[in-house]
Amino acid sequence: MPHSTIIKVRGYHCDYYGHVNNARYLEMLEEARWQYLEAGMDLSYWQDRGLGFVVVSVTINFLRPASPGIDLEILSETTKLEGRKGTIHQEVINRQTGKTVADADVTFSVIDLKTGRAKAMAGEVLAGFEKIRVADKPRDAS
Amino acid sequence: MPHSTIIKVRGYHCDYYGHVNNARYLEMLEEARWQYLEAGMDLSYWQDRGLGFVVVSVTINFLRPASPGIDLEILSETTKLEGRKGTIHQEVINRQTGKTVADADVTFSVIDLKTGRAKAMAGEVLAGFEKIRVADKPRDAS
Amino acid sequence: MPHSTIIKVRGYHCDYYGHVNNARYLEMLEEARWQYLEAGMDLSYWQDRGLGFVVVSVTINFLRPASPGIDLEILSETTKLEGRKGTIHQEVINRQTGKTVADADVTFSVIDLKTGRAKAMAGEVLAGFEKIRVADKPRDAS
Amino acid sequence: MPHSTIIKVRGYHCDYYGHVNNARYLEMLEEARWQYLEAGMDLSYWQDRGLGFVVVSVTINFLRPASPGIDLEILSETTKLEGRKGTIHQEVINRQTGKTVADADVTFSVIDLKTGRAKAMAGEVLAGFEKIRVADKPRDAS
Repeated sequence: MPHSTIIKVRGYHCDYYGHVNNARYLEMLEEARWQYLEAGMDLSYWQDRGLGFVVVSVTINFLRPASPGIDLEILSETTKLEGRKGTIHQEVINRQTGKTVADADVTFSVIDLKTGRAKAMAGEVLAGFEKIRVADKPRDAS
Repeated sequence: MPHSTIIKVRGYHCDYYGHVNNARYLEMLEEARWQYLEAGMDLSYWQDRGLGFVVVSVTINFLRPASPGIDLEILSETTKLEGRKGTIHQEVINRQTGKTVADADVTFSVIDLKTGRAKAMAGEVLAGFEKIRVADKPRDAS
Repeated sequence: MPHSTIIKVRGYHCDYYGHVNNARYLEMLEEARWQYLEAGMDLSYWQDRGLGFVVVSVTINFLRPASPGIDLEILSETTKLEGRKGTIHQEVINRQTGKTVADADVTFSVIDLKTGRAKAMAGEVLAGFEKIRVADKPRDAS
Repeated sequence: MPHSTIIKVRGYHCDYYGHVNNARYLEMLEEARWQYLEAGMDLSYWQDRGLGFVVVSVTINFLRPASPGIDLEILSETTKLEGRKGTIHQEVINRQTGKTVADADVTFSVIDLKTGRAKAMAGEVLAGFEKIRVADKPRDAS
């Protein structure tokens, strides 16, 4: 049950070709990740602990163009938490057609803002992810 | 003799209508201001003094559309330094046609990053602007 | 009764100073205008008629900084429709403090996409604005 | 001999953490690609032939943070042209430290703007890439 965020495509998301620009998708994915993380660990959760959520790498496939007026649904799900890295898989779906517009694997680390070093996926970091896992679970299944 | 910055319009600067988007002009103007200020006071000049350069208001007129491939020349000139505010006038010119695409008055303050309060246009703040005025002056005119 | 849009400030909206960047406000205002116009005339309303909604000028005041986590409420209201131009007044309010973060007057024209000429604020253009005026009206007042 | 583009990091490129935001790197890479392609095939080269240059996928690694004032050098090189796809490898280097800040493989297709279908890497498409290969070659080596 991945987390869902809706973003409507506007004229300013698009470039000269009339479709959402590839850099803009990364902003949309970031917006979706903050909404997804919010249930357990928003920006202030990290700030309060002197931690930062940083993106280490992104692999993104642009499968179909998206034009203004389309509602994009962005599904986000943590697929890996291992060592000092995690991966969130994200899919961008055109709600009018049901087809996938883009998909991405976003690898991140949680870093100590003073030393710049990545923390292990343990303790308070893991606890944050546990919280959103529970928040995502459908109620009638518990 | 205003300072001149050239920015070539790319597909990603444009929106669905195929012309540079209005928000993007503000980024182009910011880029031109940093290049303009650099001769006397770049970001680190302010940082070293615990100061920040903040935009207080912008009035911008969008006169003509600009498409990919056009070289935009952005002219920047300080037109007022008074009390706790200054104004930089900026013009965006299509180099192919010589016509003005946009013009703007950008009012700014220099603030103390700790207190958030604007500094008077005096002392080291004014000194920075004096330096770029000299840098702008053509050599043979001195 | 101005139209209301909520946008939560994220890290990617902010610049080096940690506050929403001035260019980004123009994108937020554009987002709010599309939501505002949607009740009567979305992008396809204009497209179907070979028309485009273009911004002619913006005067914006940046009154207070806004940081990540803050919910910004953007109020939008048409304050003038005259000749070949209209004005939408927009205010950006920090919902946590109730204070105004920025305000703007956005002057626009509706242009014929083929000729590039602005249409008079009459006929189908005015009809679109009449529709959103009714949509804005509270139900119990009708 | 990869093509080189210099972009100076500004405050508006950075996000709340004070470093260049991950979405912004994709815009910088796009800027570098247009400068790289310009010698043989700019946007109008494609437009005149009813073709468009579209990004199919991006794999990008963010290796080190970059702050305002740093000159980033972006190296771009075509590493594959096969079937209906090509790959441009791009590296972003901090000129002050000489260290790699980010690297990316950008896979693209050249599409027929009417049908939306990708063209084979042959004929006029390949000819464009041949032209920039020659432009890149150092003179004394010919």
